[in-house]
Amino acid sequence: MPPRKISILGVGLLGGSIGLAAKSSIKDCQIIGYGHRQATMDAALGRGAIDQAFTEPEAAVAGCDLVVLCTPVGIFRQLLSKIAPSLAPGALVTDVGSTKRTVVEEAEKLLPPTVHFVGSHPIAGSEKRGIEFARPDLFQNALCLTTPTPQTNPAALETVEAFWKSLGMRLRRLTPAEHDKFLSDISHLPHALAAALVSMQTDKSLELAGKGFSDTTRIAAGDAELWRDIFLDNRDNLRDGIHAVRSELDRLLKLLDTQDAAALKDWLSTAAARRTALEKRHPS
Amino acid sequence: MPPRKISILGVGLLGGSIGLAAKSSIKDCQIIGYGHRQATMDAALGRGAIDQAFTEPEAAVAGCDLVVLCTPVGIFRQLLSKIAPSLAPGALVTDVGSTKRTVVEEAEKLLPPTVHFVGSHPIAGSEKRGIEFARPDLFQNALCLTTPTPQTNPAALETVEAFWKSLGMRLRRLTPAEHDKFLSDISHLPHALAAALVSMQTDKSLELAGKGFSDTTRIAAGDAELWRDIFLDNRDNLRDGIHAVRSELDRLLKLLDTQDAAALKDWLSTAAARRTALEKRHPS
Repeated sequence: MPPRKISILGVGLLGGSIGLAAKSSIKDCQIIGYGHRQATMDAALGRGAIDQAFTEPEAAVAGCDLVVLCTPVGIFRQLLSKIAPSLAPGALVTDVGSTKRTVVEEAEKLLPPTVHFVGSHPIAGSEKRGIEFARPDLFQNALCLTTPTPQTNPAALETVEAFWKSLGMRLRRLTPAEHDKFLSDISHLPHALAAALVSMQTDKSLELAGKGFSDTTRIAAGDAELWRDIFLDNRDNLRDGIHAVRSELDRLLKLLDTQDAAALKDWLSTAAARRTALEKRHPS
Repeated sequence: MPPRKISILGVGLLGGSIGLAAKSSIKDCQIIGYGHRQATMDAALGRGAIDQAFTEPEAAVAGCDLVVLCTPVGIFRQLLSKIAPSLAPGALVTDVGSTKRTVVEEAEKLLPPTVHFVGSHPIAGSEKRGIEFARPDLFQNALCLTTPTPQTNPAALETVEAFWKSLGMRLRRLTPAEHDKFLSDISHLPHALAAALVSMQTDKSLELAGKGFSDTTRIAAGDAELWRDIFLDNRDNLRDGIHAVRSELDRLLKLLDTQDAAALKDWLSTAAARRTALEKRHPS
């Protein structure tokens, strides 16, 4: 049975897009939104992403089948504590957070045994932020990771996965620890490098930026609070990733010092081949 | 007077696009192409990027007003030596190389005093390679850097700049040393980081790559030989840039260790603001 009354806590790019996508793919569903800024809620109502708006999370979850946490991960703990007493027995709770160990652990601790939590991470969105960028096709063909644990209720897991599937997503299961390790390497570390690369530029070099630099650093324009929360929550994995990149850069420095043309070409062509293999997924 | 007989040495993405753009913007011009592979020359002739093809550079430059070096920078020295005796008196020679100190120095040394060299770097192109990606509008509104020295003939400089302008480019002058420093930071270093980031990924993390990772690493798919030459030629600047990025990453590691949320948010939001300021130039 697909959820009929869905609560979306945080109606920005992701939350708003979930509302738009659910309304176009799930028959007769009702979307309840929560946000602390009235202007955002008005915009979400105006775009038809939600049917009803609340500025208190407790009110927004009452009587809902499915609750989706869509705020920055740093607020999840506080949000889970607030909604716990108001959740209907049997309600499912999931999230769209970019890190999974902490949120899954906290949700399993903070939510009552009468409700079921399933960690989710739909890999969609961009450096853009806000309800104005929400669109119903944001999740089409994108990958959604779920992170069940031994405590996860199998039926709840299947219902949550079916929900993401109804929004057009492909699904894959990982443990919370695997998720945080892989996502650190493929998403959080690239953000850190892009920010470092932008930070060391001078105004003079930035004037000469071409398409390559713009592509390489696009993600660095992302919301600082959101990424601060991700970086802090996943700091052990991010630290390992930074050290791994530093090892690669040390290797490059050595090749430059010794002017080892053959090994340098090997290093570059191995990277080029691996990157080219991804091209079919996200053509330029 | 715009050049009427133009020799393009190396008819790939850039050389082919110059041919197509010149033929559509300069009346009655004739384009002579050189390449060592007959298949490439046939493709260039077939696409109308060149009117005549030679597989020897000496033959391709005879009687030309303007010669544009479009091969990888590592071959420039050998190419300049070969064409020097065959250049018509008064001929202009320029290039599209991504580094400028070495090529300008070698051109001024290797070319006879009867011809004039002007260093150029049209910032256009992509990670794509080859005549099949050439297009006449590649240079429209893009920036072309020229790198005159005290030896540069002022009239030759103006003619070369007018040529790039006729292809739709904006122009800017830098010294060869300034060029190589700025381009290292804004182009060569991003390539090094993208390659390092691709190299440290595992197959498992690569399976989870989203649009952000694809954007961030797109340039790493570029031609390994071309980038090997650029890295070796500009190794002093690239080394400085790698150390500057490492300083930023060291700063980040410290913020993660101390869990300094406020300073981490500042670091991220400063980078986000600088990157956002570029957005109007290369919208995603």
